[in-house]
Amino acid sequence: MIGVDWGTTSLRAYRLGPDGAVLDRCEARLGILAVPPGGFAEVLREVAGPWIAAGERRILLCGMVGSRQGWVEAPYLPCPAGLADLARATIPLPFPAAEARLVPGLSCRDRHGVPEVMRGEETEILGAAEATGAAEATFCLPGSHAKWARWRDGAVLGFTTHLTGEAFAALSAHTILARMLDAGAPHHAGGFARGVRRAQQGGGLLHHLFGLRAAALFGEIAEAEAASFLSGLLIGHEVAAALEEGVSPPVILVGAGPLVARYGAALDLFGVPHRAAAPEAAARGLHRIAEHLP
Amino acid sequence: MIGVDWGTTSLRAYRLGPDGAVLDRCEARLGILAVPPGGFAEVLREVAGPWIAAGERRILLCGMVGSRQGWVEAPYLPCPAGLADLARATIPLPFPAAEARLVPGLSCRDRHGVPEVMRGEETEILGAAEATGAAEATFCLPGSHAKWARWRDGAVLGFTTHLTGEAFAALSAHTILARMLDAGAPHHAGGFARGVRRAQQGGGLLHHLFGLRAAALFGEIAEAEAASFLSGLLIGHEVAAALEEGVSPPVILVGAGPLVARYGAALDLFGVPHRAAAPEAAARGLHRIAEHLP
Repeated sequence: MIGVDWGTTSLRAYRLGPDGAVLDRCEARLGILAVPPGGFAEVLREVAGPWIAAGERRILLCGMVGSRQGWVEAPYLPCPAGLADLARATIPLPFPAAEARLVPGLSCRDRHGVPEVMRGEETEILGAAEATGAAEATFCLPGSHAKWARWRDGAVLGFTTHLTGEAFAALSAHTILARMLDAGAPHHAGGFARGVRRAQQGGGLLHHLFGLRAAALFGEIAEAEAASFLSGLLIGHEVAAALEEGVSPPVILVGAGPLVARYGAALDLFGVPHRAAAPEAAARGLHRIAEHLP
Repeated sequence: MIGVDWGTTSLRAYRLGPDGAVLDRCEARLGILAVPPGGFAEVLREVAGPWIAAGERRILLCGMVGSRQGWVEAPYLPCPAGLADLARATIPLPFPAAEARLVPGLSCRDRHGVPEVMRGEETEILGAAEATGAAEATFCLPGSHAKWARWRDGAVLGFTTHLTGEAFAALSAHTILARMLDAGAPHHAGGFARGVRRAQQGGGLLHHLFGLRAAALFGEIAEAEAASFLSGLLIGHEVAAALEEGVSPPVILVGAGPLVARYGAALDLFGVPHRAAAPEAAARGLHRIAEHLP
């Protein structure tokens, strides 16, 4: 089968064996925002064409491709939801060359009734969950919109999203903090840890943001550590809020790269045990959902 | 005497009678950022010239004019500090036409040792404090960098700053929230109150920010109330953090205009009694500090 994780800024396609092994892959900067209206089928044909020619007949897609700005809008499936629920809720896509179906996103409400949504992460979580060996876990997916999901007995029970990555970008570039930090500076582990520890103190995020400015005025933070401090401060506030709402161990970090490593460092400072999910969570999830298709 | 409150974006000058009454005033969009290097004396001559010609010989200035980007840098005076301390710490300015002195800003450290600074607000607080009739109070000064100051027996004991106004500007214009709200929309009291109430719930500011986006996706917040919701959310988080750190009643709101009214509405929702400071707090403070000059 073919699996496609089609997000806002990038597309990842996989040719998967009957056991879910990744036989071949294709990554492109062809996120849904880069696709012209009506152009989704053509992009998929380009990407998956060789595998279809080689005999693949089933394609399963997940991610923002199912959003209002995507190919076809797939209504959110309310939590709790597991593999079979997602498989049942897939919708067909107008794609003559193969049988293409779309995995919907998930929705839930927090305990105050405020809605939550995800698209794509549900597939990563269920792909990563397979390998955990636990009956219960919390999945953390760092990103512009970081997700914390509660999972038990094969189903995503609910989740919360934190605007952490976007807040970092906006605050570092468009406030007085922009004068004293370089958002693109190399990661500074000490500055990051200082930021996380600051988040563990009272006073509130908005006060802590000004404190970074004042520390710079007094020469108490080096320019080289300021951006990492801000990153640690925001991730620290996110982790503190997630822990306050209750987190069932183990915490499993989904994803790869420096941002995920930072979340690991933050969790260490909070004394929360965590581990990394097996790689290729989206490909695994697409394969597992496909196994439940009729 | 002449009093000048010279901030980043505007200048307010007053001719004050011996009892502190405002005899004349001048406001200009001549904040320190609009003054060319070396141009401060000339701007002051233009603004205060007619009053000097009429016989005024003493000028007292406060605000960002005493910062590194201002006319002369006045070192911060550490808290606690009252009128006599500030008067003693004023520094002379190179201004031949009259005896001009500069009120320094204040600094302090929060209970975790993180530095705090203000320039100009100390003069407003001490100007407003005169009229409170209380031995102890908390002063709240809304703004881009909102201040909460503890005052007792004539001295500012310490204070905290929250980057609330700047965070509103950055988050409303430079995140995904920009697509769903108009930061310049008219104030919506219901949306503002919803935002404050949301801040009173757990989950953290970064989660609440995403919740605004999700509520819009589900049609659960009108575009007309979204900007006011965000404002209420941020001010609500600021108030919650300030209350958590401990606030001595009464809370006295310093300033005028719609933003100050919003802080009043937020404090009402938290059930915190508050009152408005007498107007012209900066002019009063300049007059009171001048009374303590040698």
